[in-house]
Amino acid sequence: MRVRNKPQALAMLEKYPQYVIQNPEDYRGKWQTLFEKEQPLHIEVGSGKGRFINEMAKAHPEINYIGIEMNKNVLVNALDKLVESEVPNLKLLLVDGRNLNEYFADGEVHQLYLNFSDPWPKTRHEKRRLTYRSFLETYEQILQPNGEIHFKTDNRGLFEYSLASFSQYGMIIKQVWLDLHASDFAGNIMTEYEEKFSSRGQVIYRVEAYFPEKKEK
Amino acid sequence: MRVRNKPQALAMLEKYPQYVIQNPEDYRGKWQTLFEKEQPLHIEVGSGKGRFINEMAKAHPEINYIGIEMNKNVLVNALDKLVESEVPNLKLLLVDGRNLNEYFADGEVHQLYLNFSDPWPKTRHEKRRLTYRSFLETYEQILQPNGEIHFKTDNRGLFEYSLASFSQYGMIIKQVWLDLHASDFAGNIMTEYEEKFSSRGQVIYRVEAYFPEKKEK
Repeated sequence: MRVRNKPQALAMLEKYPQYVIQNPEDYRGKWQTLFEKEQPLHIEVGSGKGRFINEMAKAHPEINYIGIEMNKNVLVNALDKLVESEVPNLKLLLVDGRNLNEYFADGEVHQLYLNFSDPWPKTRHEKRRLTYRSFLETYEQILQPNGEIHFKTDNRGLFEYSLASFSQYGMIIKQVWLDLHASDFAGNIMTEYEEKFSSRGQVIYRVEAYFPEKKEK
Repeated sequence: MRVRNKPQALAMLEKYPQYVIQNPEDYRGKWQTLFEKEQPLHIEVGSGKGRFINEMAKAHPEINYIGIEMNKNVLVNALDKLVESEVPNLKLLLVDGRNLNEYFADGEVHQLYLNFSDPWPKTRHEKRRLTYRSFLETYEQILQPNGEIHFKTDNRGLFEYSLASFSQYGMIIKQVWLDLHASDFAGNIMTEYEEKFSSRGQVIYRVEAYFPEKKEK
């Protein structure tokens, strides 16, 4: 997603340290202390303008959420929504998904969402895709055993790539949707992007996959 | 596929024992002896009217093919094509895909094709789907280690089911195509069914997956 630069973005984000956690490495292994209740922790990597994670937090008060985004210019939109909704079970982070294990302890996360990640269609950019194996290694580390990734996209190439990448990494595919909006999947919360592109007739793909518990060597 | 009954079908099939092998259990572990050359053995389970397997045999003289179909009324169409093409590297079998290990020895098959298999959409018919785990067990047995299944279908529900079924069985997904005809996949041979439905705008799905070598226990 290309977004125009917003010179005031960083200042905005720093204005709400209760929502946008400023020193995330300090909370490694201790994220539950930031929330009102100790309950399962779900994170979204690449939250964009944050509609998904805000709506999820509203719909599921029994879960704690963290929205992660490395682009300050869109994270401010996610912050706007959080300032308005004031949900107690959502925090935001301005960090790169590449280094999640610096911010989360092993097994600290119960579930991970990827929504409409940048497809990086060129082969030479494969390593930047959020479903490339180096990212999966990090996700596996911070997720609890059998922890799930829920991924949706409208990008055919990225979805084809990701199914194979998940499987070749050793993940198990639990369920696949090849036309989410035509399915009986209940409780789908659309991202801004999803609403726009599905209204143009674009098919939305979705997969739930998990890292099986490692067998002893 | 619903086909009208052809009273002469069995007689036709028996008329060409060099093409339609009459006592397949006798060739278990010895299929190579039936062909001119000893070379990799690929089988198609559910060959229908046989265009795919006939065209594959013509295009790949370096491979031996066996087309398997349990419906005599469509196998006669496959036989017609074989009588005309007279390719030396194709045989046909009138047997049920459920019992393939009665006809093939462990590891005797190098690759297995499934094309536009019956979707059996009702949950209570799950066990009849050719990608249900009991079929996968049989395929794994007769395929050589790392042997691949190449599967295509236009049925979204069956494809979604099969990706999860493969993965949960322990197969590795090598590559996925979510719109085969829009991709750069080379050498696709269309089945009768595929030509008809793709010309109506139906998307064709394809996957290549394999059984990894079993680790010692």
